[in-house]
Amino acid sequence: MKTLFTSDYCEGALPRIMKRLQETNMVQTVGYGEDEYCAQARGLIRSACGCPDADVHFLVGGTQTNATVISSILKPYQGVLCAESGHINVHETGAVEHTGHKCLALPSPDGKITAEQIREAVDGHFSNATHEHMVMPGMVYISFSTESGTIYSRSELTAISEICRGYDIPLFIDGARLGYGMAASEIVYGDDALTLKDFARLADVFYIGGTKQGALFGEAVVITNDALKADFRYCIKQGGGMLAKGRLLGIQFATLFEDGLYLDAARRAVSQAARIRKAFEYKRIGFLVDSPTNQVFPILTEAQAEELDKDFGFEVWKKLPDGSIGVRFCTSWATPDANVNLLVSAINKL
Amino acid sequence: MKTLFTSDYCEGALPRIMKRLQETNMVQTVGYGEDEYCAQARGLIRSACGCPDADVHFLVGGTQTNATVISSILKPYQGVLCAESGHINVHETGAVEHTGHKCLALPSPDGKITAEQIREAVDGHFSNATHEHMVMPGMVYISFSTESGTIYSRSELTAISEICRGYDIPLFIDGARLGYGMAASEIVYGDDALTLKDFARLADVFYIGGTKQGALFGEAVVITNDALKADFRYCIKQGGGMLAKGRLLGIQFATLFEDGLYLDAARRAVSQAARIRKAFEYKRIGFLVDSPTNQVFPILTEAQAEELDKDFGFEVWKKLPDGSIGVRFCTSWATPDANVNLLVSAINKL
Amino acid sequence: MKTLFTSDYCEGALPRIMKRLQETNMVQTVGYGEDEYCAQARGLIRSACGCPDADVHFLVGGTQTNATVISSILKPYQGVLCAESGHINVHETGAVEHTGHKCLALPSPDGKITAEQIREAVDGHFSNATHEHMVMPGMVYISFSTESGTIYSRSELTAISEICRGYDIPLFIDGARLGYGMAASEIVYGDDALTLKDFARLADVFYIGGTKQGALFGEAVVITNDALKADFRYCIKQGGGMLAKGRLLGIQFATLFEDGLYLDAARRAVSQAARIRKAFEYKRIGFLVDSPTNQVFPILTEAQAEELDKDFGFEVWKKLPDGSIGVRFCTSWATPDANVNLLVSAINKL
Amino acid sequence: MKTLFTSDYCEGALPRIMKRLQETNMVQTVGYGEDEYCAQARGLIRSACGCPDADVHFLVGGTQTNATVISSILKPYQGVLCAESGHINVHETGAVEHTGHKCLALPSPDGKITAEQIREAVDGHFSNATHEHMVMPGMVYISFSTESGTIYSRSELTAISEICRGYDIPLFIDGARLGYGMAASEIVYGDDALTLKDFARLADVFYIGGTKQGALFGEAVVITNDALKADFRYCIKQGGGMLAKGRLLGIQFATLFEDGLYLDAARRAVSQAARIRKAFEYKRIGFLVDSPTNQVFPILTEAQAEELDKDFGFEVWKKLPDGSIGVRFCTSWATPDANVNLLVSAINKL
Repeated sequence: MKTLFTSDYCEGALPRIMKRLQETNMVQTVGYGEDEYCAQARGLIRSACGCPDADVHFLVGGTQTNATVISSILKPYQGVLCAESGHINVHETGAVEHTGHKCLALPSPDGKITAEQIREAVDGHFSNATHEHMVMPGMVYISFSTESGTIYSRSELTAISEICRGYDIPLFIDGARLGYGMAASEIVYGDDALTLKDFARLADVFYIGGTKQGALFGEAVVITNDALKADFRYCIKQGGGMLAKGRLLGIQFATLFEDGLYLDAARRAVSQAARIRKAFEYKRIGFLVDSPTNQVFPILTEAQAEELDKDFGFEVWKKLPDGSIGVRFCTSWATPDANVNLLVSAINKL
Repeated sequence: MKTLFTSDYCEGALPRIMKRLQETNMVQTVGYGEDEYCAQARGLIRSACGCPDADVHFLVGGTQTNATVISSILKPYQGVLCAESGHINVHETGAVEHTGHKCLALPSPDGKITAEQIREAVDGHFSNATHEHMVMPGMVYISFSTESGTIYSRSELTAISEICRGYDIPLFIDGARLGYGMAASEIVYGDDALTLKDFARLADVFYIGGTKQGALFGEAVVITNDALKADFRYCIKQGGGMLAKGRLLGIQFATLFEDGLYLDAARRAVSQAARIRKAFEYKRIGFLVDSPTNQVFPILTEAQAEELDKDFGFEVWKKLPDGSIGVRFCTSWATPDANVNLLVSAINKL
Repeated sequence: MKTLFTSDYCEGALPRIMKRLQETNMVQTVGYGEDEYCAQARGLIRSACGCPDADVHFLVGGTQTNATVISSILKPYQGVLCAESGHINVHETGAVEHTGHKCLALPSPDGKITAEQIREAVDGHFSNATHEHMVMPGMVYISFSTESGTIYSRSELTAISEICRGYDIPLFIDGARLGYGMAASEIVYGDDALTLKDFARLADVFYIGGTKQGALFGEAVVITNDALKADFRYCIKQGGGMLAKGRLLGIQFATLFEDGLYLDAARRAVSQAARIRKAFEYKRIGFLVDSPTNQVFPILTEAQAEELDKDFGFEVWKKLPDGSIGVRFCTSWATPDANVNLLVSAINKL
Repeated sequence: MKTLFTSDYCEGALPRIMKRLQETNMVQTVGYGEDEYCAQARGLIRSACGCPDADVHFLVGGTQTNATVISSILKPYQGVLCAESGHINVHETGAVEHTGHKCLALPSPDGKITAEQIREAVDGHFSNATHEHMVMPGMVYISFSTESGTIYSRSELTAISEICRGYDIPLFIDGARLGYGMAASEIVYGDDALTLKDFARLADVFYIGGTKQGALFGEAVVITNDALKADFRYCIKQGGGMLAKGRLLGIQFATLFEDGLYLDAARRAVSQAARIRKAFEYKRIGFLVDSPTNQVFPILTEAQAEELDKDFGFEVWKKLPDGSIGVRFCTSWATPDANVNLLVSAINKL
């Protein structure tokens, strides 16, 4: 059996979560997220976000969450601005288009987009004489961390938020890997790191990813813009995202947010990734992109890739013209030291 | 705390399932349902269905499953024939319409539709001079057991299947409560009871409900008609139903189908419901509908309803013109004897 | 060749319209409805509606107009209340569902619905404990005249308008046969007849049908509710209804509304229909429904139907259990006296 | 009044068409394209295409036709490959996405795409390990002539057709300006020019544009691939494109195809454009793109643009970094010599 670094969803859930699910298993509750565990989790998340008025909803997975949030916001003739490499634009089998909306993709070598790109897109649209014949930009989608493992700085995110508010266009942050992003932000930016309170303040709606960050599954949508709150449960139900046993989401998120477990688990994954990154750097192996999060994208020779492939699972990301291969190693809340040791040792022998 | 008979998803999962999730928690697997647990579960289900060539897919919930299956089958101008009271027509916030398709509802006092109704609808459509201006019936949706807890007999289901095949219109069976329906079928029809092998033979696609029948969540879609198999995973992903940690579904369904746990748990719920039904009968209390499954629909006076409401949770189903109230009591795999004893005793005192 | 009474779109356009199209044929204009003819027609319609602030848009056909208006108003999880026999529910191949919305059909023997039915549907929805699992009523659709040729009285329409405003649910009137309805309203209700000013006042959006009332094609949408005005041209374009040579619509509607041509042509059709109705009445032939507009629905014996079928085109509407046949004879702006004379004479000979 | 070269839909229709509409105005016909004029037009088009088995349908406008054809072909999880500048991707307000499908845009400096690009896109999709998470290419859309006025050669189109058939992916040609493209093809390629018979042979479905080429409105869809023929009228009706007075389309297309009027009118427009192009060339004014059709794209200085703007209407296409402006002059079937003389004279004076 290979040791897998293919993704951040190779294992089940944090042991504390499994324990709580077990303990509460036979307790009777009402369904569809209206139980006491969900209420508790909502309270903890509102508190962590410093936003007592936020609406908090629990959905099962990321694609579902993205499509539900986006189609709840856009008018039929509006599209969503996003990075060309954005998950919604590339890896969700057209779930957004399935709800009738175009992804308005902006070029992005590193998975991020800029306030200036948004300004150009929106101004460009409305100043076009035939704008009624074109899809109107109706919201902005970014991810934190991005598909490429990169993160926005405080000033970058603030600029995006301000430009969106200037145009009255909602900003939605896909936080499938929000914790990993925040943990990396602490390392890169120190006191200036982005926190949940910042996301709650700068975004109109965002979600806190559970699936990739220690839960069996689950994403917590936080809506801070009052204009986007009404009837969101209708949208969840219509989109097939309303879990009958909503309690399972409440129990998991309550556990993640009771004592900072969420961010602790993410920090651990990020530091494991840092060890792997360092090992590649020692071997003077370059990277596709400079990712400070739980994803590492070294560029390997074919021989190196074959060697590592003997014992480890990882993803081929991009084949380069010179024959080398950009690959991805992913750590998670679950990655044990032993696995990292094995990998680092193998890297050293390349 | 009231004792809840409000639904069949008030508790977590069968203990054996919780144990297996715990045991496998740190095993690494690939994602999206391509792991060994899913493979094992698929094998067990194919075998139980007597259909080695069936495609088996795991989704998270019922609304999601219905919308995904239906929109994968219909052409844009086609609709789905169903009972007026069908879950897709009433209780899924228009999820089917959200994918662009009309529910073509047929009158149904008891939640069932007949082969004759289907024949009339299809013939009526194609013999209409302006049929191109009307939604074409493209498939048939029934549920087993139905929203009203009723079940089709073998001859009824066979007639429906034959008429569908005669028109080359796929038959889809919503099996959110398939186990409860099969357990009731055994009691009502004995040797003539419908089994998984029958559903696999008579339907083109159906699903085996887990959420309401002992799993934390999950529905197993079984596609037996070759013409409906291609690319179904694209549809699941696009509809937001592809669980990243697909293993969770595989582990649960493998457990349910290893030693007949699925049907055993259902039988238990059905016999608990039978005790409750009998208690109402003793009090000469009538029923909204004659349901042999895990749902019981007594018609209570307002005073009786208030009395039971003190200690028990149940659902108000329908207020009748004479002031009496049709309510629903629901048992599940989790209902302990103690709860039924309490309720029966309360009914006796009415 | 048979003389056709099959529909109100058997001929081209009013001669005055053909003349104007001919006269303006080589005049150069800009496209997409931003030309001077459209501006002129908008002014005339606003004036006829007594509503200088109304937005007026021109689309090509009725199904397109209905789907565009309805999908521009509803949120994804909302549906449109309508009569079971409503054109959108039966005769548009599911165009409304194609845009993602459910038609919430209300029983209606004569094509009309009542304020009370709307109240029950909306109250019923929001008082239902599981309303989030059901499609929310988001607007009301009625037609004037209806599919059955019936018309609302002033008090009926006022009651519907008031209940809609009470719930803040927009009222949309399909006026494919608005002129025929108004002309009939004059006859039935005299000084209390409904006028364009009434529709502008009581509806939030309605359309003035051209296709069936003397134009080659075209429907003029009048939006009086400010909240529904924004970006409607985007919706028209997206729905494929923005005619490149929008001038054709402007020229036609300007002609129809210059000197009352629209209503005059409708009055003529209605009086021709009245002659036909009278002829059937003389023969003591009954009617499916009591329609005062340009449609007549006599119930014929099979022999009578065969006899008339020799020389006349008409539509079979409904076969009755006793073997008799409800049929439809339709007059239009184009029906000459000679054709009516022929038909009346044939009826007399039955 | 300025002389307009802004588009090819500034005037009404070819005089012969107006005459025929006038002559037939009071003839009674059935509706929805089932009349004798439509039958006649279908016959003429089948004959011109050398394809007696083709299905021919008439729709009103281009956006409507594109959305109807594309959504009739694609499965929900499929998208349509097209040029980045393709009309469906840029200028239809997301009509294709509105039907649930993604435009899979390929880079294209001149409005054309290549067989090789298609091969890479399709191979790239299916060889991707996560292809089920991505939109599957389900058809190819090209336009002839393109948005940039360019045309495919016989060998280019043949290569595209062959690669599509190799993958069993339908090829759809948007022929809003098919006639102008064919007329230009004659000039550029002589005996090797593409004809209607070639489009019928190489495409699976294409349309012959009327709106921009001498009709008041109308596009004739020609379906040659048997697999795409079934139930297309349902799609037209559902998409709001079924004209009640379908005769208007039949009459127009019958007139266009009786004596080669269609291509003659296009040839005339193309030769008028050639005169304008020549005039710019004499002044050593360059072009954005080398278009041999009825569109000319000179690059003007700001002063030149202002000068021409005094007396002529034209479209600003693209502002260039050096301050110059790429503009578009468009001729049509209606452009008189006098207008071209005026323009040429003004160009000479620049």
